[in-house]
Amino acid sequence: MSFAGGRHFLQIPGPTNVPDSVLRAMAAPTIDHRGPEFGELGRTVLAGLKPVFGTTRPVVIYPASGTGAWEAALVNTLSPGDKVLCFETGHFATLWQEMARRLGLTVHFVPGDWRHGVDPARVAELLGQDGAHEIKAVCLVHNETSTGVTSRIPEIRAAIDNAGHPALLLVDTISSLGSIDYRHDEWGVDVTVAGSQKGLMLPPGLSFNAISDKALAASEKAKLPRSFWDWRPLLEAGERGYFPYTPATNLLYGLREALRLLEAEGLPNVFARHLRHAEATRAAVEGWGLEVLCADEREHSAALTAVVVPEGHDADKIRALILDRFDMSLGAGLGKLAGRVFRIGHLGSFNDLSLAGTLSGVQMGLALSGVPIRPDGVNAALDRLAAASRTDREAR
Amino acid sequence: MSFAGGRHFLQIPGPTNVPDSVLRAMAAPTIDHRGPEFGELGRTVLAGLKPVFGTTRPVVIYPASGTGAWEAALVNTLSPGDKVLCFETGHFATLWQEMARRLGLTVHFVPGDWRHGVDPARVAELLGQDGAHEIKAVCLVHNETSTGVTSRIPEIRAAIDNAGHPALLLVDTISSLGSIDYRHDEWGVDVTVAGSQKGLMLPPGLSFNAISDKALAASEKAKLPRSFWDWRPLLEAGERGYFPYTPATNLLYGLREALRLLEAEGLPNVFARHLRHAEATRAAVEGWGLEVLCADEREHSAALTAVVVPEGHDADKIRALILDRFDMSLGAGLGKLAGRVFRIGHLGSFNDLSLAGTLSGVQMGLALSGVPIRPDGVNAALDRLAAASRTDREAR
Amino acid sequence: MSFAGGRHFLQIPGPTNVPDSVLRAMAAPTIDHRGPEFGELGRTVLAGLKPVFGTTRPVVIYPASGTGAWEAALVNTLSPGDKVLCFETGHFATLWQEMARRLGLTVHFVPGDWRHGVDPARVAELLGQDGAHEIKAVCLVHNETSTGVTSRIPEIRAAIDNAGHPALLLVDTISSLGSIDYRHDEWGVDVTVAGSQKGLMLPPGLSFNAISDKALAASEKAKLPRSFWDWRPLLEAGERGYFPYTPATNLLYGLREALRLLEAEGLPNVFARHLRHAEATRAAVEGWGLEVLCADEREHSAALTAVVVPEGHDADKIRALILDRFDMSLGAGLGKLAGRVFRIGHLGSFNDLSLAGTLSGVQMGLALSGVPIRPDGVNAALDRLAAASRTDREAR
Amino acid sequence: MSFAGGRHFLQIPGPTNVPDSVLRAMAAPTIDHRGPEFGELGRTVLAGLKPVFGTTRPVVIYPASGTGAWEAALVNTLSPGDKVLCFETGHFATLWQEMARRLGLTVHFVPGDWRHGVDPARVAELLGQDGAHEIKAVCLVHNETSTGVTSRIPEIRAAIDNAGHPALLLVDTISSLGSIDYRHDEWGVDVTVAGSQKGLMLPPGLSFNAISDKALAASEKAKLPRSFWDWRPLLEAGERGYFPYTPATNLLYGLREALRLLEAEGLPNVFARHLRHAEATRAAVEGWGLEVLCADEREHSAALTAVVVPEGHDADKIRALILDRFDMSLGAGLGKLAGRVFRIGHLGSFNDLSLAGTLSGVQMGLALSGVPIRPDGVNAALDRLAAASRTDREAR
Repeated sequence: MSFAGGRHFLQIPGPTNVPDSVLRAMAAPTIDHRGPEFGELGRTVLAGLKPVFGTTRPVVIYPASGTGAWEAALVNTLSPGDKVLCFETGHFATLWQEMARRLGLTVHFVPGDWRHGVDPARVAELLGQDGAHEIKAVCLVHNETSTGVTSRIPEIRAAIDNAGHPALLLVDTISSLGSIDYRHDEWGVDVTVAGSQKGLMLPPGLSFNAISDKALAASEKAKLPRSFWDWRPLLEAGERGYFPYTPATNLLYGLREALRLLEAEGLPNVFARHLRHAEATRAAVEGWGLEVLCADEREHSAALTAVVVPEGHDADKIRALILDRFDMSLGAGLGKLAGRVFRIGHLGSFNDLSLAGTLSGVQMGLALSGVPIRPDGVNAALDRLAAASRTDREAR
Repeated sequence: MSFAGGRHFLQIPGPTNVPDSVLRAMAAPTIDHRGPEFGELGRTVLAGLKPVFGTTRPVVIYPASGTGAWEAALVNTLSPGDKVLCFETGHFATLWQEMARRLGLTVHFVPGDWRHGVDPARVAELLGQDGAHEIKAVCLVHNETSTGVTSRIPEIRAAIDNAGHPALLLVDTISSLGSIDYRHDEWGVDVTVAGSQKGLMLPPGLSFNAISDKALAASEKAKLPRSFWDWRPLLEAGERGYFPYTPATNLLYGLREALRLLEAEGLPNVFARHLRHAEATRAAVEGWGLEVLCADEREHSAALTAVVVPEGHDADKIRALILDRFDMSLGAGLGKLAGRVFRIGHLGSFNDLSLAGTLSGVQMGLALSGVPIRPDGVNAALDRLAAASRTDREAR
Repeated sequence: MSFAGGRHFLQIPGPTNVPDSVLRAMAAPTIDHRGPEFGELGRTVLAGLKPVFGTTRPVVIYPASGTGAWEAALVNTLSPGDKVLCFETGHFATLWQEMARRLGLTVHFVPGDWRHGVDPARVAELLGQDGAHEIKAVCLVHNETSTGVTSRIPEIRAAIDNAGHPALLLVDTISSLGSIDYRHDEWGVDVTVAGSQKGLMLPPGLSFNAISDKALAASEKAKLPRSFWDWRPLLEAGERGYFPYTPATNLLYGLREALRLLEAEGLPNVFARHLRHAEATRAAVEGWGLEVLCADEREHSAALTAVVVPEGHDADKIRALILDRFDMSLGAGLGKLAGRVFRIGHLGSFNDLSLAGTLSGVQMGLALSGVPIRPDGVNAALDRLAAASRTDREAR
Repeated sequence: MSFAGGRHFLQIPGPTNVPDSVLRAMAAPTIDHRGPEFGELGRTVLAGLKPVFGTTRPVVIYPASGTGAWEAALVNTLSPGDKVLCFETGHFATLWQEMARRLGLTVHFVPGDWRHGVDPARVAELLGQDGAHEIKAVCLVHNETSTGVTSRIPEIRAAIDNAGHPALLLVDTISSLGSIDYRHDEWGVDVTVAGSQKGLMLPPGLSFNAISDKALAASEKAKLPRSFWDWRPLLEAGERGYFPYTPATNLLYGLREALRLLEAEGLPNVFARHLRHAEATRAAVEGWGLEVLCADEREHSAALTAVVVPEGHDADKIRALILDRFDMSLGAGLGKLAGRVFRIGHLGSFNDLSLAGTLSGVQMGLALSGVPIRPDGVNAALDRLAAASRTDREAR
């Protein structure tokens, strides 16, 4: 393997930089998944996840990547041909509704421009038109990893409630959970889908469903074939801290440590840190004279920022140069955004100086790529970070 | 965590003892799963798996446990209502056919006594009766982890061929792959299902399908809904070493190292080591005057040995005593064998002295539990091991 | 690196098998040795060592191997030409007095047969003859790693006291500390020398001096040149948890974890475990019809057992065969014992089943080497271990 | 342990940031230091060190910190009362000559202002005055870690040669080796002293002497008492890859990996990287309107930069604020520089973006501390780094 000093800057919007102590925790010897020591591990992580989801209801853990938890949310609650309402907020919302189609559901996919989140008014309107309650579920991506746009779940919840519609609310929080404030119970979400490799600061390989009582009741009648993803055996075994099949033990070691770190920092502090980094990043983009993809001030993601590259420049070439010269990975533009944006991940385990290094790499990379920018991005970000530090200190 | 000196003996038949170097490999920082370094990793492990399966055809890797790969084998090749032929060789064969039922297949489940493998003559008979070729697949567990019985796949293959029956052959090698000689191509298997946590010496969290051309062709017409498990995107992305969704990167680091270790030892040596340990274990059981569960000399598993506990004794109490006194985990009797057998895992990364320690713990544990045994088990095993060492040396 | 399954059995009498959690602790990133986080680490390990030495007085930690701590004990307390009394109990006692000579001390080296510890009566006699108190220090090896003989420090202390002699008592506990009961304060030891790589379950690289008030007073007048080994700056900085020069930070991480493990098990349990393993090992040697080197029943080491190989057999060839066939390292005969004994280390992090595996390897290795033994060693050891387990359980 | 996201920035001038792969290498199980596997390890690292020192002559490795290697250089080559010539270039030069005094040598300590390296003309003058050749050794610190000043060894060598003086040349490269170009043989150095925790990218705990033939000859007659530090047994055992006493095995694992990384990057690239970072750092200091401590353009250290804090500001308070707010450790002013400077370490495993993060932290910390600076430091550094990247690319 080549080496040129220092650590790689992994600034894609996930997988994120895994803390050393989480990596070391994962290197402990695998134990008997039916023994008493495992039960303690299982109970610890199953309980520790609940506050992160903002729920007192059960969470199930899949030894699978986040895509699997998407499938789990659908097959446990819906029946063949059921109608679901989806919104084209970006690449991942598009993939999820494609999955729904492939599984035999009928998808109403509301077009979007990939620069806005889900419009609560549109939700209200569409559900209002569905007097027969044919729509069984509304599927949303909380934080669109492809665009850096965060949909406003509480307003959407209110829209559903105002329409008096019984549809389930299924929310993908893969790139928001543990980075952006999220409240499964308070917001009346029925199934929250999440993965390990973003705000939870773990490698990929675990995924989650948080399940409301309403979703659980729906699962009794849901008829899509299911076996591996079936909640029931997971919930039964989970009560004692076990799993119906062999779990990904060493990733669970990592999860225990990651939950300990989140608790040590305190979730409100974690969310504040991500907001601060997102603001500083947008300040940098403005400093360079470039444009952030997200077009609604209320919907800027705290987890990542997608930057629009000026016409005539290829975002992928810029990313390749930055990887080559500065050993930093940035996120590509996905789907219809390919080549037109790059994405800066500032989620997971990350701090002010790493953000400064990241933005420095972007500034140098843009300049070396010949993109016409003002060299004021990093300084603008530093001003924000210093100001936040000053304010924070005075508040103590 | 309590500590009483030394390392835990993890002698369940999987998860197995993970080599230190594999655990350390897994602790490397997670990388961008879309970057060039990942592509190299992906190509290395996808290529390195093929000789382990005995195939030149593609293998797909799921970021999921082995149960998921069972589901993948079914949903990629079959359609709702399809008839599959299954054999009750033990607990895992029973679970797999239950999954098939839940997914909407019609299962013909041939009863068994949990002490024998699949009878090739019975396969021939049943397929011979199916002149209409209604049976679309024969599902077998190569090595029944619950019983320590290994079915004779080549003879079963011959039976299918002799019957001139076109059914697909789906084989679960979860507890045999990498421990017991196995040949996907030579034996004409259509889908081989495997997991990471046994002979591959990894923690749980990865699973595999090796896929024949015939299976691939079947997948074109198969109508069970599938998305996460769908082979197509995995095969497409896999050609360049990538995955259609976020893979379990750190487990893949471990896989790369585990494949390196298997290659360093040499598969024929790996298989010979497991045969030697299985023979020594049976010698010990005979030395104690106890009975091995497997009732057919041709079907003894090289990966684990299930020991029948005399009437009036509870195998689970013996296991609990051994865990408490000697810090060793043994496998429980599962399903209808609960309390009646315990299982000694001798698969994965394991050597003569660890086996001697394991059998010593069993011998002491049986004695302390009041089971009437002769104290000749360990010595009988040591005689076998020493004899094997002598023979091996002379052969060089 | 070659691989043949399983873990190496490191049964030399040190370095010992390092627990996984200690190895992982050592892999944490190095921190600023002048920062507040380091101070906490330093205070924790400096305090945590005291009960292991059985002292309330200061302990200093050298970032150096045990040989260095020998030198430290001498140069801090003695002046050029000072007379010291040493006893030829084995190879390490011989090396220590050679060091004393090289440093300019006058050594009275009492010959021995390498099968006995220091004779308290001889100490009494020699000090009694020294009416002028020319002997400034008595240097003893508590547990002779080369012979498996443990000298009786309390009786020697009594002999010194009865002689009314003011000599300092310097004791090497390199292979006993943390494995065999030891009491720096109660036994009136002035300097206790120790290392990290035996009972403390760490890799080599740290060593220790526990220092009595009398030794500290002596250090004020001692004139051997000293700088790196000088206690004073270490004691001064140590009060706040720091070091006068860069300490071996990552080994200190390991030490913190190792002390936690010793405390979790409880020192009395640790010592009982080692006594049990030593008795079982001697039972095995007797079962084989071989002879233990230690010739005094009161002086058997709980940390290792040296086994005499019958005339006409080369202990080193036996060791080489065992390494080659069974991947186990045993200790060589050192100095005048070369080729005539091998040493079985049963110290540090070790348990009953690992001991059974170890003795199984020795039994097979002896047989394969053509040494005429009875095959009753392992069974005799298992009987002891099982009996100890029975007694222990009844005692609860 | 507290956690606030991200990794600590360890920007003291050593210990440095240890690469992940080195930390993981150190976590491998300890092996028998007398066995064949160890011999291979020993030979690999002893050979691999030579090019790093720029020597074909032997290097010895101590399981001890760098201070020990200072002592080794002196006790192996000199006799009580011997006269040595030392230069007050800073704190570490001062400590080394104090050690020499304590060991019984006669030190001529040439005063200095801590802003310059050793003056070759002064060396020439002093040796020229020593017609009787009473000066047995000249002791220099190549890179003064306390000041960021690098002495010009080749010019000093020439001065010694021109004076026709036979004194040994002993050079401390603790903070330069592996970061700054250094040539033991070419520059006629007799003993090079080094440590593991700086350019070698390891934790502290290993130290080194590279030894010229002339030094080896001197060691035959040197009369300072020595045992632990004695070169002879180390050289003898080292020929086969072993050590006369238990080596720090796990640190040697790390050394093997670190040497592999240095070779992978290529020493010329390593040195160029450090020069680039030092230049960028000085550009930042100039950008802030502050002063670098080093007063001679020819002597700027490539490994660290000491920054003078304006009158009325306390460097230690600034460092404390930066540690508290930005989780970065900087080096303190030592000795007579306490409170007046802080030191930025940019040595070891380090890259452009980490430097940018480091300088960003300093810039924000200075501003938050009320130090009057211009906010142009980071941008000036980025300009340098980008320019270097452009030049480097064009040169390919």
